[in-house]
Amino acid sequence: MAKKNRRPSGKKTKASKMDSYIQPGSVPGTIIIDQDAPPPTIFLIDYNQTSLTHKQINTPEECVPYLDTISVSWVDVQGLGSADILQRLANVFSLHPLVLEDVVNVAERPKVEDYEDQLLIIARMVVPKERICGFYSEQVSFVLDKNYLLTVQEEPEHDCFESVRMRIDKSKGIIRKQGANYLAYALLDAIIDGFFPVLERYGDRIEELEEEVMNKPSRQTLQEIYQIRRELLQLRRTIWPHRDVINSLIRDGYELINEDMKPYLRDCYDHAVQVMDMVENYREITNGLMDVYLSAVSNRMNEVMKFLTVISSIFIPLTFIAGIYGMNFNTEKSPYNMPELNWYFGYPLCLALMAVVAGGLALAFWQKGWFSKF
Amino acid sequence: MAKKNRRPSGKKTKASKMDSYIQPGSVPGTIIIDQDAPPPTIFLIDYNQTSLTHKQINTPEECVPYLDTISVSWVDVQGLGSADILQRLANVFSLHPLVLEDVVNVAERPKVEDYEDQLLIIARMVVPKERICGFYSEQVSFVLDKNYLLTVQEEPEHDCFESVRMRIDKSKGIIRKQGANYLAYALLDAIIDGFFPVLERYGDRIEELEEEVMNKPSRQTLQEIYQIRRELLQLRRTIWPHRDVINSLIRDGYELINEDMKPYLRDCYDHAVQVMDMVENYREITNGLMDVYLSAVSNRMNEVMKFLTVISSIFIPLTFIAGIYGMNFNTEKSPYNMPELNWYFGYPLCLALMAVVAGGLALAFWQKGWFSKF
Amino acid sequence: MAKKNRRPSGKKTKASKMDSYIQPGSVPGTIIIDQDAPPPTIFLIDYNQTSLTHKQINTPEECVPYLDTISVSWVDVQGLGSADILQRLANVFSLHPLVLEDVVNVAERPKVEDYEDQLLIIARMVVPKERICGFYSEQVSFVLDKNYLLTVQEEPEHDCFESVRMRIDKSKGIIRKQGANYLAYALLDAIIDGFFPVLERYGDRIEELEEEVMNKPSRQTLQEIYQIRRELLQLRRTIWPHRDVINSLIRDGYELINEDMKPYLRDCYDHAVQVMDMVENYREITNGLMDVYLSAVSNRMNEVMKFLTVISSIFIPLTFIAGIYGMNFNTEKSPYNMPELNWYFGYPLCLALMAVVAGGLALAFWQKGWFSKF
Amino acid sequence: MAKKNRRPSGKKTKASKMDSYIQPGSVPGTIIIDQDAPPPTIFLIDYNQTSLTHKQINTPEECVPYLDTISVSWVDVQGLGSADILQRLANVFSLHPLVLEDVVNVAERPKVEDYEDQLLIIARMVVPKERICGFYSEQVSFVLDKNYLLTVQEEPEHDCFESVRMRIDKSKGIIRKQGANYLAYALLDAIIDGFFPVLERYGDRIEELEEEVMNKPSRQTLQEIYQIRRELLQLRRTIWPHRDVINSLIRDGYELINEDMKPYLRDCYDHAVQVMDMVENYREITNGLMDVYLSAVSNRMNEVMKFLTVISSIFIPLTFIAGIYGMNFNTEKSPYNMPELNWYFGYPLCLALMAVVAGGLALAFWQKGWFSKF
Amino acid sequence: MAKKNRRPSGKKTKASKMDSYIQPGSVPGTIIIDQDAPPPTIFLIDYNQTSLTHKQINTPEECVPYLDTISVSWVDVQGLGSADILQRLANVFSLHPLVLEDVVNVAERPKVEDYEDQLLIIARMVVPKERICGFYSEQVSFVLDKNYLLTVQEEPEHDCFESVRMRIDKSKGIIRKQGANYLAYALLDAIIDGFFPVLERYGDRIEELEEEVMNKPSRQTLQEIYQIRRELLQLRRTIWPHRDVINSLIRDGYELINEDMKPYLRDCYDHAVQVMDMVENYREITNGLMDVYLSAVSNRMNEVMKFLTVISSIFIPLTFIAGIYGMNFNTEKSPYNMPELNWYFGYPLCLALMAVVAGGLALAFWQKGWFSKF
Repeated sequence: MAKKNRRPSGKKTKASKMDSYIQPGSVPGTIIIDQDAPPPTIFLIDYNQTSLTHKQINTPEECVPYLDTISVSWVDVQGLGSADILQRLANVFSLHPLVLEDVVNVAERPKVEDYEDQLLIIARMVVPKERICGFYSEQVSFVLDKNYLLTVQEEPEHDCFESVRMRIDKSKGIIRKQGANYLAYALLDAIIDGFFPVLERYGDRIEELEEEVMNKPSRQTLQEIYQIRRELLQLRRTIWPHRDVINSLIRDGYELINEDMKPYLRDCYDHAVQVMDMVENYREITNGLMDVYLSAVSNRMNEVMKFLTVISSIFIPLTFIAGIYGMNFNTEKSPYNMPELNWYFGYPLCLALMAVVAGGLALAFWQKGWFSKF
Repeated sequence: MAKKNRRPSGKKTKASKMDSYIQPGSVPGTIIIDQDAPPPTIFLIDYNQTSLTHKQINTPEECVPYLDTISVSWVDVQGLGSADILQRLANVFSLHPLVLEDVVNVAERPKVEDYEDQLLIIARMVVPKERICGFYSEQVSFVLDKNYLLTVQEEPEHDCFESVRMRIDKSKGIIRKQGANYLAYALLDAIIDGFFPVLERYGDRIEELEEEVMNKPSRQTLQEIYQIRRELLQLRRTIWPHRDVINSLIRDGYELINEDMKPYLRDCYDHAVQVMDMVENYREITNGLMDVYLSAVSNRMNEVMKFLTVISSIFIPLTFIAGIYGMNFNTEKSPYNMPELNWYFGYPLCLALMAVVAGGLALAFWQKGWFSKF
Repeated sequence: MAKKNRRPSGKKTKASKMDSYIQPGSVPGTIIIDQDAPPPTIFLIDYNQTSLTHKQINTPEECVPYLDTISVSWVDVQGLGSADILQRLANVFSLHPLVLEDVVNVAERPKVEDYEDQLLIIARMVVPKERICGFYSEQVSFVLDKNYLLTVQEEPEHDCFESVRMRIDKSKGIIRKQGANYLAYALLDAIIDGFFPVLERYGDRIEELEEEVMNKPSRQTLQEIYQIRRELLQLRRTIWPHRDVINSLIRDGYELINEDMKPYLRDCYDHAVQVMDMVENYREITNGLMDVYLSAVSNRMNEVMKFLTVISSIFIPLTFIAGIYGMNFNTEKSPYNMPELNWYFGYPLCLALMAVVAGGLALAFWQKGWFSKF
Repeated sequence: MAKKNRRPSGKKTKASKMDSYIQPGSVPGTIIIDQDAPPPTIFLIDYNQTSLTHKQINTPEECVPYLDTISVSWVDVQGLGSADILQRLANVFSLHPLVLEDVVNVAERPKVEDYEDQLLIIARMVVPKERICGFYSEQVSFVLDKNYLLTVQEEPEHDCFESVRMRIDKSKGIIRKQGANYLAYALLDAIIDGFFPVLERYGDRIEELEEEVMNKPSRQTLQEIYQIRRELLQLRRTIWPHRDVINSLIRDGYELINEDMKPYLRDCYDHAVQVMDMVENYREITNGLMDVYLSAVSNRMNEVMKFLTVISSIFIPLTFIAGIYGMNFNTEKSPYNMPELNWYFGYPLCLALMAVVAGGLALAFWQKGWFSKF
Repeated sequence: MAKKNRRPSGKKTKASKMDSYIQPGSVPGTIIIDQDAPPPTIFLIDYNQTSLTHKQINTPEECVPYLDTISVSWVDVQGLGSADILQRLANVFSLHPLVLEDVVNVAERPKVEDYEDQLLIIARMVVPKERICGFYSEQVSFVLDKNYLLTVQEEPEHDCFESVRMRIDKSKGIIRKQGANYLAYALLDAIIDGFFPVLERYGDRIEELEEEVMNKPSRQTLQEIYQIRRELLQLRRTIWPHRDVINSLIRDGYELINEDMKPYLRDCYDHAVQVMDMVENYREITNGLMDVYLSAVSNRMNEVMKFLTVISSIFIPLTFIAGIYGMNFNTEKSPYNMPELNWYFGYPLCLALMAVVAGGLALAFWQKGWFSKF
C-alpha cells in the first residue's frame, strides 16, 4: 500500500500517479508513509510590513512562537517521508485527522474544505520538465488560519513558488502589507499560472507535429500524438477541480477569505478558465491531428499502390508480347506458325509494338494524373 | 423469470447481469427467488464501546433480542436463496414490501429511499478477480434504522467488508464509539474504495496494451481493447448512481444521518468522484488506443504493400528484358533480327543492363525512404 | 394524409411510423381516421374490492352507467378505425377536442397534460417480436378521471397489460383496493417494464454479433449492426419522454395523483432510468462494435495482402532467373555468352540457386512473422 | 451588401443564405433593400365572426381604416423589394426602427421581442421542393397588435399559410371567433407543421440511401449523404430557435398572448420538439450511414484484392514452372541438364504438375472462403 | 516574457497568440511592455449633439480638459509599445492596477468587470485578411465612465471602428444624441458584426473545398481542411466569451448601462449567438468534409486497385499460356511432347485461345462493373 502512495517519479508512472488509492475499508484518517518519500524539510517565513524572518527549521515545534503573533507565518513543508514529523506537525497546527490524511494522501482531488478555524485547500502543481515536452506534477496542501499558512508539498524539488518568496523577501508589490489569505491567493495564483509554461511547450510540440504529420508521418509521430493526448487528458483532470476550488473560495463566503481578496481571486479564476480553454483547444487540435495522420497514411499507401500499378501495368503486357515471340511453334511446319519470326523487320516491328503499347499506357496514366503526387 | 434474476456468474453473463429485469406488469413488491442462488447465511455483530458479540446465526428471529438494545447491531445476510428466510427477515425488520422487492431484485440501480423509520440504500460492490483483469459485481442493500443496520449481499463469496469487521473486532479507530449510521458510512466507503483496486488492474492492463498496440498489434489486442471498453462502460454505469446516493445522503437531510456524518460522507463523495474521473480517463485512453490500433494496422499494411511494390517493381522490368532476349526471331533471315544475340559481349552487356535497371530502381526506392520502416 | 397516420406495420415502416405527421395548417383538434386501421373493440372492467365486471361492449354509451359509480371503471379501446365511435367516445367522456386529436394522432410524443378534471397521458408501448430481435411499437393514451380510466390503444394485437388484467380478475396484490390512479400507475409500470424483454433480445443479439465480428465478419454483420443501432435510436427516442412523463406525475402535483402513489411512481421512474441506462449502454457497445468491424475488415485485407506479397515476392525473382536462362544468346559466338548453359552441372546449379533464393525469402518472411495470422 | 441580403435562391446559395449579415458598424435600424428582391404584394384579410374582407391592396395606407376596428385584420406582405413601401408600412403600423430592420434583414435568427404595444416574432418557414429532396426557406416576421397581425414574407412564392386562409374563408374551426393572437398561433403552427413534409422526404431518401450503401455504394451516394447531412444541419439550426420562441410565448407572460392560447401553444411546442427529435434522429442515422459507407468501400476493396490475389497466386507459380522448362540448358552436354525435356512423358508430366499446383492452391483458397463474397 | 506578450503577427503565431501568458507568481498588476509593440497613437473624439472635436493627441494629459465636460469623450489608444505613456494614461483615468494589467496583457479572455465608477470590458476584434481566407485578431479594452470611454487597441492597423467614427463625424443615426454607454455599445456591436465578413470567407472557402474533395482530393486539400478547422476553433474560443460579456451587460444591472441600452444590447446579443451558430455550423461541416475526404481517398485507392487487378488478371494468364509454348520439351523424342508446336494451325489456335481467355475475363470484369468508376 505504501508503495502505491509514492512511486519514483518518471515517465512510466506519471499518468497513474494521481490514480493511486487508499486501501478499501481502512480507518478514515489513517496516514501511511511511503518509505521512498524524501524526508520533510521545513521552511519558515514570518513577515509583516516591517520585519522578515526567513529560515529553515528542523522540528515543527520551532515554529510555535511565530504562530500566535500578528505577523504572517508561512510554514512550508517539502517532502512527506516521516510519519513522526507529520504527526508532530498535526499537533502543532491542531489538524483534524481527516486533514492530515488528505495532506499525506498525495492522490487527492483538488478541493477546499472548511474545518471550523482552518481552511484546507488541496491543489496540484505542475512544473515543466527540463528540455522536453512533459511535466512533473505534485500535490500541494494549504492549511490556512488567521495568522499563518501551512503548505505541504509532495517533494522538495520542482516548485513554482520562488517568485512569491522573492516578492516577500524584496517586499515587491503589496504582499507584505497583506494577511495570510493574500499569501494563500498568491501561491494559488502561482500554481494556476504555472500551467501556462507547461501548455506552451505542448503548443510548440503540436506545431512541430503538424509539420511532421503533413510531410513525413512515421510511427513515431503516431506515438507522440497519442502520448500528448494522454498527457493533455491528465492536465485536464488536474485543472478542472482547481476552477471549482477557486470558485468556491469566491462564492461560498468562507470567513478566512476577506472581501478584498475577491477581485484577485476572480482574476485567478479567469486564468484557470483560460488554462481549461487552452487544454480543450489542444485536445481538439490533437484529435484533428490524429485524423490527419490517418489520412496521410492512406495517402501514402495510395502513392505506393499507384507506383506498383504503373510499373506492373506497363511491363506485364510487354512481357506478354515478349512471351509470345518466345514460343516455339515450328515455323517450318506451316506458314501460319509465327511467320513474324522470319520477317526481315520482325524484331524491330516487335520492339516498335512494345514501345507503342508502353507509350500508350504511360500516356493514359499521365492523363489520369497518376504521375503527380496524389 | 427466476433464471433471469440469478445467472451463474462468469465471463459471459457478467455484462448482462445488471440488465436482468422483473416481469412486466407483475405486482409491485413481488419477490422471486432464483433456484440457483446460494442459501442465505446470516452474521450478527452487536457492539458498543465496551462489549462485542460476533457470531453466525441460523434464523432471522435470533437477532430480535439485539435489535432493541442501544448497542449497534449489524445483521449481514449473504445469499438470497430462500424465500422463507427472506420473508421472515422482512417480518423481523418490518420491511415495506417495496423494500423487500428491491433487496431481492439484484438488478436494481443504486439509490437511497426513505421509508419513514428506515433508510433503504441500494449499492453495488465490485471485487477484483484473482489474477486477471476483471471483477465480480454484486448488489448490497442496506436497511438502516436507529440502532441496527441490516445488509443483504447477493452472494457469500467476495466481499470488501473484511477490514471493517476487523476494525470493529479490534476496536480500531472510532467505529465502536459511533452509531449505526457510522457503520453504514464505513461500509459504503469500503464499497467505493473497492473500486480502486479494480481500476488499478485496468490501468496496468491498458499500459501493457499500449505497448502491444505500438509494437505488435494482433487481433487479440483488438479483442482485449474492446473487452476493456465494455467493462469500463459497466463500471461507469455502476459508479455514477453511487455518487447520487452519497450526495443525497449529504444534502437531503435524512433524519437517520447525523450532522457529524457529513464530513465523512463528503470524503466518501470525493472518492466516488475520483473513481468516476478515473473511469472516464481510462475510457478516453482506450478510445484513443482503438484509433492507434487502426493506424497501426494501416501502417502494417503499408509496409507489406511497400515490400511487394519494391520486389515487383525491380523484378518485373528485369523479367521483361530477359523475355525480350528469349524471343525466337530468326537472326539468320535479317541483320535486324536480334543481332545482340550474336554479339561477342551480348550476354555480359545484357546482364549489365539488368544491373543498371535494378540498381537505378533500388536507388529511387532508397531515396523515397521505402527501405526504412514507415 | 390518412395513409400517413396508419401504415401497415412491418419492418420497413417501423422506424418511420413515429415520424408521421398531421397536415400543416389544419384545424387544431381535427381527427383523421386511417381507412386501414382496425375497428375499435371496447372492453370494460369495473371493479371494487368486492365486485367485478369484465366484458366486451359494443358501443361507448354502454359504459355510461358505470362511470358515475364509486367503483373503478377501466374502459380499454383497442383500434382507431372508426371516426363515429371515437366521436361518441369523446362525447361519453366529455373529452376536450385537443385530447381527442392527441389520442387519434398516433405519432404524438409521450406527455402528460392536465385538462381540468381529466389527466391525459400519452405513452408508447413496445412489444417484442416473436422469434427475432425487434419490436412492435404502438401508442397508448390514458384519460384519467377520479373514478374511471379510459385507455386507447392503436391496435388490438400485442399488448402488455395482460398481467394487470389478471391481477384485477384474480384480485392479486392491492390493485382491487385502490382507485383509478393506481390502475393508471399499474399500466404505466407495465409499459415501462415491457421495455426490458425487448432490450434483453438486443443484448443477446449483440453478444452474438460480437462473436461474429471477431471471428467471421461479413457484410451481413455490418447490416445487422447498423439495423440494431437504428432500432436502439428509436427505443431511446421512445423511452426518454416517458421519464419526463413519470417525473411530471411525481413532481407537478396533479390533483388526481394521490400522495400514496408517489413511492410507486418513484419505483416506476427508477425503472425508466434503468431502461435508458441500458439503451445508452447498448448504443455505446454497438458503436464500439462498428469500430471493431472496421478493424476486422482491415485485418482481413492485411492477411490477403500478405499472402499475395509472399507468393509474388518468392516467385517473381525465381521466374526472373528462369527467364535469364531462357534467353537465346548465341553461345557459339563467344565464350562469354551464357556459358552456364553448357556447364556439366548448369541445370542443377540453377535449380540450387532458385532454392536458395526462395528459401532465403521464405526465411525472411517467417522472421517477419508474416506466416502467422496478423 | 444589398447582394448579400438577397441572393437568387438555388442549390448553391441555399445553405449560406441564413449566413448573410449586416455591415459591421452600420447604424442600428438601417434598412437596405436588395435590388433583385421581388416587389411587395400586400393582401388584407379582415374578419370577425360574421363578416369577411379578403383582397389584395396596392398601398399600405389602404389598410388603415381596417386597423382600428374591432375585427381582426391580417395584413400579409409578400416580398421585400421596395424601400418606399416598407417605410410607409412602418409608418402605418408605427414600427420601431429596430423592428423594421429585423423584418427586412432576412438573416435574423427566430426570436420574439416585446415592443410595448406590439409583439415582434421572427420565424422561418420551410417549404419542400417539388419533386426532389430539399426545401426552400424564407423568413416570416409577425407584428402582432391587439386587433391586427402584420406578417412579412421574404418572397411571394412558396407559402404554407394556404390552409389557414381557407379556414378563415370557409369559417372552419374556431378561427373566426378568435382574436389576432389566435391567428398568429395558427400561422406559427402552420410553420412548425410545415417541417414535417420536408422531413418525410428526407426520411424516404435516407431509406433509399441505406439500400444503396449496402448494395452498390458509389461516389454519388457519398455526395448525397454529405448533402443530406448539411441540409439537416441547416434544418436543425432553423428549428431550434423556434422552440425557444414558442416557449417564450408560453412562459414570459406577454400581454398580447391570452391565457386561453396556452394549451394551443403547448401543442405547437410539442410539435416543435417532435421536429427536433426527428432531425436529431435523421442526423444520427446519416452519421451511421457514413460509417457503413466507409465499411462498404473497404469491403469492396477487399473483394478486389482477393480476386487479384487468387489470380496472381495461381498463375505466378505456374508461369515459373513454364519458365523453368523454357530455359536453354544444353541437354547434350550433360545428362543432368534438364533431362526432363527428353523424357517420353515430359510434357504431360509437366502439365500434370501445373494442374496439381493450381488445384492445390484453388483448394486452399476455397477452404479460406475467399471464393465466397466477403 | 515581453516577447510572449507580443509576437509579430503572422500565420505561424496567430493560433498561439491568445495562448500567451503572464509569468507564474508575478505581482498582480505588473505591466510588461513588449519591445516590438508599436508605440501608442492616441485619438480623441469629443462630441455632443451640436459640437465635435476629432484630433490626434500626443500625450494622455491632453485629454484631461475634455473628460469632465458633459460631452462624450472617446479616447482611442492604438498600440501598447510604451510603458511610460500607458502609466500616464492610468494616472489620467485613475485606473485600478488590475485594470491596467488586463489592458496591457493582450492574452486576456473577453470579460466585463465593475470597478466602482468604471466598467472594464475586454473584447477581441477580428479583421479579415486581404485576399485570402484568414483573419487578424487583436484585443480591445474598453474603460467606460459616465462621460468618457477609453479604448485601447493592441495595434494601430486593422480596425473595424471606421464606420462608427463616420457616424459620429457625419452625425448619422442617434449616436450624437446618446451618452458614452451608447458609444461603447456601438463599438461592441461593430466588433461582433466584424465576425460576419470573416466567417463569410470561410463559408466560401468551404464551398470550394467541398467541390475539391468530391472531384480531385489532394494532400493540399487535407491541409486546408485541417487549417480551417483550427481557425474555426480559435474563432469559437473568441466569440463564446463575448456572448457572456454582452449577457452580463444586459442582466447584471451595471449602473453605467442605462435601461434604454437594453434593446440594443439584446440585438447585439442575438448577433453574437448567430455568429456562434455559424461557427458551430462550419465546424460540423468541416468535420463532415474530413470524413468525405477519407472516403474519397479510399475510393481513389479502390480505383487504382481495380485497374491493377484488371490488367494483371488479364495478362498473367496469357503470359502463362505463352510460357507453356515457350518450353523446350523435345518434340522429337515423343509424340506427347508438345505436339501443338508442330500442328499446322498451332500458332493461330494458340492466339485464339489467348483471345478467348482475355475476352472471357474482360467480360467478367465488365459484368462486375469494374470498368465503370467505383
